[in-house]
Amino acid sequence: MKMSAGVEWAVHSCAILSAATEPVPVTKLAELHGVSKTYLAKHMQALSHSGLVQAIEGRDGGYLLTRSGSEISVYDIVQAIDGPEPAFRCTEIRQRGPFPASAEACKVPCGIAQVMAKAERAWGDSLRSVTLADLNAAFDASSPGSWETVRGWLAGTPTP
Amino acid sequence: MKMSAGVEWAVHSCAILSAATEPVPVTKLAELHGVSKTYLAKHMQALSHSGLVQAIEGRDGGYLLTRSGSEISVYDIVQAIDGPEPAFRCTEIRQRGPFPASAEACKVPCGIAQVMAKAERAWGDSLRSVTLADLNAAFDASSPGSWETVRGWLAGTPTP
Repeated sequence: MKMSAGVEWAVHSCAILSAATEPVPVTKLAELHGVSKTYLAKHMQALSHSGLVQAIEGRDGGYLLTRSGSEISVYDIVQAIDGPEPAFRCTEIRQRGPFPASAEACKVPCGIAQVMAKAERAWGDSLRSVTLADLNAAFDASSPGSWETVRGWLAGTPTP
Repeated sequence: MKMSAGVEWAVHSCAILSAATEPVPVTKLAELHGVSKTYLAKHMQALSHSGLVQAIEGRDGGYLLTRSGSEISVYDIVQAIDGPEPAFRCTEIRQRGPFPASAEACKVPCGIAQVMAKAERAWGDSLRSVTLADLNAAFDASSPGSWETVRGWLAGTPTP
């Protein structure tokens, strides 16, 4: 099972936006994370399309979260980048071969698909239980003062 | 997040092996599932490499599970096909940019990686709680008599 690499950049970027007090240009986010602006911009656009962030135009523009960090879960960000499709996709193997399942039997999902879906719900529930505010509070507890440093840097002269 | 399509074929095939009383040739498994022998053989080899099935050579040969269906979980099969790597791979973004995390702080996984790992454990625990025997019992309850039909077919004249 594989998750898009963009998820990691997106969660880190949203954690920064959650702690920022002003719109953050993608140039700043890219510099802060040591990644190319072009690469990060693609993921910020996906976050924008999903309604988690909005782009503010103009000289002091940049990205803002559309709601508080306590109202955005890690699951929201994973879904925005990786899409809403389940990891396991049932192709109805039971309907193939010499003994296809009856139409009646296929009114409910295949037992294997049910087991996979239950596991994915457990995964999703776990990610839904953690918000950006939770992530930032944990980071703040482990690295006191770090947010002040980052906020000060974000408020500094825009990088070219 | 995406799971390899081979997982679905592998779980269906292992469920058949769990219900079978004799080695099942890959030709039979392929015919039963309406898929090419070449395609299925690749996944059976992966299951063999992981030690879940063994190939019996000879005229009455085929695949057998290496242990009882009550001792093989859906998680075992997913791992055999999809590999043991976690879905989320932390690339230590915290060590990049103008404020890299200290070596001291990096002795424990990044908070984001911890959240992802916890969710994957919940997913894995869910899949570990279901065995092939459970899948087959559920199928037997929903489709009484189906296993007898399949076993009879498996015991019939080998397909060319």
